[in-house]
Amino acid sequence: MDTMKAAVFKEAGRIVLERRPVPRAGPGEAVIKVSMTTICGTDVHILKGEYPVAPGLIVGHEPVGTIAELGPGVDGYRLGQRVVVGAITPCGQCHPCLEGHQSQCGGHAIGGWRFGNTIDGCQAEYVRVPFAMANLAPVPDGLSDEQVLMCPDIMSTGFGGAENGAIRIGDTVAVFAQGPIGLCATAGARLRGASRIIAVDSVPERLEMARRLGADHVVDHTRDDPVEAILALTGGQGADVTIEALGTQPTFENCLRALRPGGTLSSLGVYSGKLSLPVDAFAAGLGDHRIVTTLCPGGKHRMRRLMDIVASGRVDLRPLVTHRFPLDRIEEAYALFAAQRDGVLKVAIVP
Amino acid sequence: MDTMKAAVFKEAGRIVLERRPVPRAGPGEAVIKVSMTTICGTDVHILKGEYPVAPGLIVGHEPVGTIAELGPGVDGYRLGQRVVVGAITPCGQCHPCLEGHQSQCGGHAIGGWRFGNTIDGCQAEYVRVPFAMANLAPVPDGLSDEQVLMCPDIMSTGFGGAENGAIRIGDTVAVFAQGPIGLCATAGARLRGASRIIAVDSVPERLEMARRLGADHVVDHTRDDPVEAILALTGGQGADVTIEALGTQPTFENCLRALRPGGTLSSLGVYSGKLSLPVDAFAAGLGDHRIVTTLCPGGKHRMRRLMDIVASGRVDLRPLVTHRFPLDRIEEAYALFAAQRDGVLKVAIVP
Amino acid sequence: MDTMKAAVFKEAGRIVLERRPVPRAGPGEAVIKVSMTTICGTDVHILKGEYPVAPGLIVGHEPVGTIAELGPGVDGYRLGQRVVVGAITPCGQCHPCLEGHQSQCGGHAIGGWRFGNTIDGCQAEYVRVPFAMANLAPVPDGLSDEQVLMCPDIMSTGFGGAENGAIRIGDTVAVFAQGPIGLCATAGARLRGASRIIAVDSVPERLEMARRLGADHVVDHTRDDPVEAILALTGGQGADVTIEALGTQPTFENCLRALRPGGTLSSLGVYSGKLSLPVDAFAAGLGDHRIVTTLCPGGKHRMRRLMDIVASGRVDLRPLVTHRFPLDRIEEAYALFAAQRDGVLKVAIVP
Amino acid sequence: MDTMKAAVFKEAGRIVLERRPVPRAGPGEAVIKVSMTTICGTDVHILKGEYPVAPGLIVGHEPVGTIAELGPGVDGYRLGQRVVVGAITPCGQCHPCLEGHQSQCGGHAIGGWRFGNTIDGCQAEYVRVPFAMANLAPVPDGLSDEQVLMCPDIMSTGFGGAENGAIRIGDTVAVFAQGPIGLCATAGARLRGASRIIAVDSVPERLEMARRLGADHVVDHTRDDPVEAILALTGGQGADVTIEALGTQPTFENCLRALRPGGTLSSLGVYSGKLSLPVDAFAAGLGDHRIVTTLCPGGKHRMRRLMDIVASGRVDLRPLVTHRFPLDRIEEAYALFAAQRDGVLKVAIVP
Repeated sequence: MDTMKAAVFKEAGRIVLERRPVPRAGPGEAVIKVSMTTICGTDVHILKGEYPVAPGLIVGHEPVGTIAELGPGVDGYRLGQRVVVGAITPCGQCHPCLEGHQSQCGGHAIGGWRFGNTIDGCQAEYVRVPFAMANLAPVPDGLSDEQVLMCPDIMSTGFGGAENGAIRIGDTVAVFAQGPIGLCATAGARLRGASRIIAVDSVPERLEMARRLGADHVVDHTRDDPVEAILALTGGQGADVTIEALGTQPTFENCLRALRPGGTLSSLGVYSGKLSLPVDAFAAGLGDHRIVTTLCPGGKHRMRRLMDIVASGRVDLRPLVTHRFPLDRIEEAYALFAAQRDGVLKVAIVP
Repeated sequence: MDTMKAAVFKEAGRIVLERRPVPRAGPGEAVIKVSMTTICGTDVHILKGEYPVAPGLIVGHEPVGTIAELGPGVDGYRLGQRVVVGAITPCGQCHPCLEGHQSQCGGHAIGGWRFGNTIDGCQAEYVRVPFAMANLAPVPDGLSDEQVLMCPDIMSTGFGGAENGAIRIGDTVAVFAQGPIGLCATAGARLRGASRIIAVDSVPERLEMARRLGADHVVDHTRDDPVEAILALTGGQGADVTIEALGTQPTFENCLRALRPGGTLSSLGVYSGKLSLPVDAFAAGLGDHRIVTTLCPGGKHRMRRLMDIVASGRVDLRPLVTHRFPLDRIEEAYALFAAQRDGVLKVAIVP
Repeated sequence: MDTMKAAVFKEAGRIVLERRPVPRAGPGEAVIKVSMTTICGTDVHILKGEYPVAPGLIVGHEPVGTIAELGPGVDGYRLGQRVVVGAITPCGQCHPCLEGHQSQCGGHAIGGWRFGNTIDGCQAEYVRVPFAMANLAPVPDGLSDEQVLMCPDIMSTGFGGAENGAIRIGDTVAVFAQGPIGLCATAGARLRGASRIIAVDSVPERLEMARRLGADHVVDHTRDDPVEAILALTGGQGADVTIEALGTQPTFENCLRALRPGGTLSSLGVYSGKLSLPVDAFAAGLGDHRIVTTLCPGGKHRMRRLMDIVASGRVDLRPLVTHRFPLDRIEEAYALFAAQRDGVLKVAIVP
Repeated sequence: MDTMKAAVFKEAGRIVLERRPVPRAGPGEAVIKVSMTTICGTDVHILKGEYPVAPGLIVGHEPVGTIAELGPGVDGYRLGQRVVVGAITPCGQCHPCLEGHQSQCGGHAIGGWRFGNTIDGCQAEYVRVPFAMANLAPVPDGLSDEQVLMCPDIMSTGFGGAENGAIRIGDTVAVFAQGPIGLCATAGARLRGASRIIAVDSVPERLEMARRLGADHVVDHTRDDPVEAILALTGGQGADVTIEALGTQPTFENCLRALRPGGTLSSLGVYSGKLSLPVDAFAAGLGDHRIVTTLCPGGKHRMRRLMDIVASGRVDLRPLVTHRFPLDRIEEAYALFAAQRDGVLKVAIVP
């Protein structure tokens, strides 16, 4: 039996590289040879034992690669084809999928998230893709792995959050937190025609990157109150759209306080515990506000749109790749990424 | 100078009937002779001093009547014409109004609410209507005052909340709290094509009225856990749409817990303090949920749609009028309504 | 090899009952034993040779039945379970399906329509269902075959057209043509909260049925000009929404002429040749009009919503079944239905 | 009485400069001193007698200027303030306005278009603005007249058409005709995040300008069949969104033929006569297509959004101003513009 190297969750605090059998494709499945992948904040939660997965699971959910095997019934693809697969791998045939809620595939909250959660993931030399027909998205000619590396997760989430925020041409948009997802939301707001994008964070390098990706104003929330800054910039009215990209009480609360009545809060963060809505901040509780939440949308149709916009040259997220590691050194990559050292934003892992 | 009887807020705990000058119509305004009005829960908050208005203000914001005077520049109406005016009286010309957020008229949260809040209201023999062109809605022939009495406020709010909830034909909808607004939301959900409407409250008469207005299932939350009941009725999936019609933490929280991922929570309640979102109830915080909030929408266009649906006979809210008082006895009506005695739902006040 | 009776297209003018092998379920497929089906106007086009299908094809696309066989990989169902399958059988995994355009499955116009078009249909004792996971919809307990017989096609199309028309509570809706689909659109408009539904046709029985299903006004277009009638009923303004349910130039044109600026024309008809838009009827060509077209939407999620609304008792389409035939006499049923004799609306065929 | 110079329609073929009284502001009105205006294709239709206006009317509907007089009841502005006013001047208080169809103000098709149509326009030294509160939009500091000159009409129409087309990030958009409105639609599609914009025209300078404003591909329809070109570029699928910006049968028809099923045709052109839909091009008439039409939207809220996007530097339409004339030479400007000589796109007229 062929074996491969794979990053495996052992117990809280330990993700290690070990040899595992190369997966085989069953009916409707495919195996792809991973050419590049990356580490997500969620993987760090897994590493720390904050998000429970089964010991022995291969982690990682952001694969770029080439098709190594096609299972029975998977038509329209060829071996060796370069593909991207979303972090969410919808089946397309359950009730939530058919209704367009592909993140909730199978009828469970985030049921669509399988890689490195309920099935083996892609921080490995090979990964098996379920529901291959719905999920394999060919990479347009001329795009490098690094150019499409963000499509499976953060670009899908950040751009999806910008789309769901119902930004109109000329709107003012505030994005709270400029980690990888927030930076994608900033780039996404730029792509939707916002006239004024206000990026909030405390890390100078992230604010600088936000400017590079489209922010017009940056607010260091350790120096200035971001709600006051946004109200000042909008004549006291508030932003048309606010985007939450961290998953904490203060950012969520600020998103509400900085929003004009009738505006939309697009929430991308993954919260825990209880969230408190400061309804006392409003004359009458809430007033024609909308709150929409987006979990990473997947599916080959979305990967295609994302790769098309990359191919157009309108957006380039390669600057987010601050560090590169071979798969052999993935434990080192985790250590760096978990510590948020050396200005790390995203790491590229090459098997 | 002509005088009239009017219910006037004096201080916390005291709304009294006194004589006041009959108002005159300035440019763009109209005066209507009130033929029927009613008392709202918000009026009780005013009475108790929980919502501050200026002493001396005439209260009330739900007028039905006939046009007594038309100010300069108000065209297309005639004296004696029967009209309804929304509780919210938008100007139609400020930024929020032009963008469709007429409740936020003037750029203030609930700035569109003027009657009995920032200007004299309609619990009186006459009321002056600002921005008359945008707000006077002629009553179709054949409709009585009681038939259209709910249009200005609770029907606009409840039906607007049902519309904003994006109900599809065949959806399951749960409505939390069956006070006057919740009952209207129940009737509204029925009008939108919900297949299964679950009404939650603890007052038997209200649950009975909910059935009469369209609920298929009723849950007495003092006997049964409403979230469990809704999950049981939906095979564990949750309702497609939940509607909050009370403005409390428990009802809001239950609305979230009873909602399927990808569903819509339509919030109508007016909250105070802080609202807590139970994100721990979800596998990953929030998952493709939408929360939309509706404040009473106004405008003659909306009053017309509401009166048209009344005229069609598809809905009849007259059963909500449980008590009737002449204006002379309005203090007695307040006492009854504030105490929620004798199964009161809405009172009709006739000047 | 087991055989069954099936209605087979032989050549223009000839659909005959013959014996055919009972189909077997391959991977992802199911076979259902048909307990009831019906004949559609499209089947008559096939019979007449106006819509080309391969000689030898079993026709029919509206199946109700029980599961007789489940192919490999089809989980969550059991043999003997009663199910409805949509006329459109989406795969759920191609680009159009993933984007919510399931009628265009496979990337071809009406590519989702397979039964009796590109694969054997259901006017037979058994039918093979492709993509079973996405298409088998269990029938709620207590519903008879006749109660759900319209779900696969005309109810899906007519109700879908009402939903796509963006009807608001209190709107005026005009439905042009009251054949089976138009009658469903009339019932659908009623379910969405229209205050005034104007049904147009020339057959007295159909206008009478329109009244029964929710129409407030009926217009016999051989006696009265329907556009003038609608303008008269709406004070010269036009209907908020018009629904085209026949597929002819005059009905389409009337739908546009009877529509208010800013309104929505929801088109359900299947046209041939060229359609002419009477832009001379408008001061400036077209003015903020919207035209949306709906082809029969399928998928088990939609069948479920439709059966749920039937189960609620809010709508009952059994009166549309004017005639009943055993499968043995299906040629007779075609003759009656094609001739539109004896007030036929829909026929029930029982194998 | 003060007089001013104004361009006046006399009869078909004759628009002449003459002296007219300076208008005065009545209640709710303002007078602005025009600092720059331009000529629209519609003005040429008026000049040629193809669109009827009353002899003696001052023409023009695209004003930039400063407030010279404020009528009674117009608050929140000051004399001398620089403002832009939309070509459409909604009242905000009639049924269509309150419903968001401000182009249909007053209940007439394009009833919102008043300047140079039903009231005196702005090709003059001064213009009276009706419903000033809803229509005066202050110009942000630092923007020149030329920078905002396109806001009142072509930018509002072209960008509105892009917004109404429901473009998603990564979509393919084809824009038929690259006159001033089509060029704005091309720029608008770019602002909405299209990945691939295909511009169709036959004039090399216009195609070159389209590239400059955001087109990725240009098709000269005199050399290549644009439908074939678009199908080739999209793998035979068709564009996600097509935008019609000319108002002719061939462009409209091509928009439909080049559209994928489920896509949106956003129609901006002003048609005359009859429009023919080539339903024979589709397998079943029409299949899940949407057609939306946009007439120039107005209102100060929209002007503000448009000026905000100009102020952001994301879009610069000054290159469209190919020629400049003083008001004294406006007849010469008309001659040039009507003849489409010298590569003219838009002319700036300075009183």
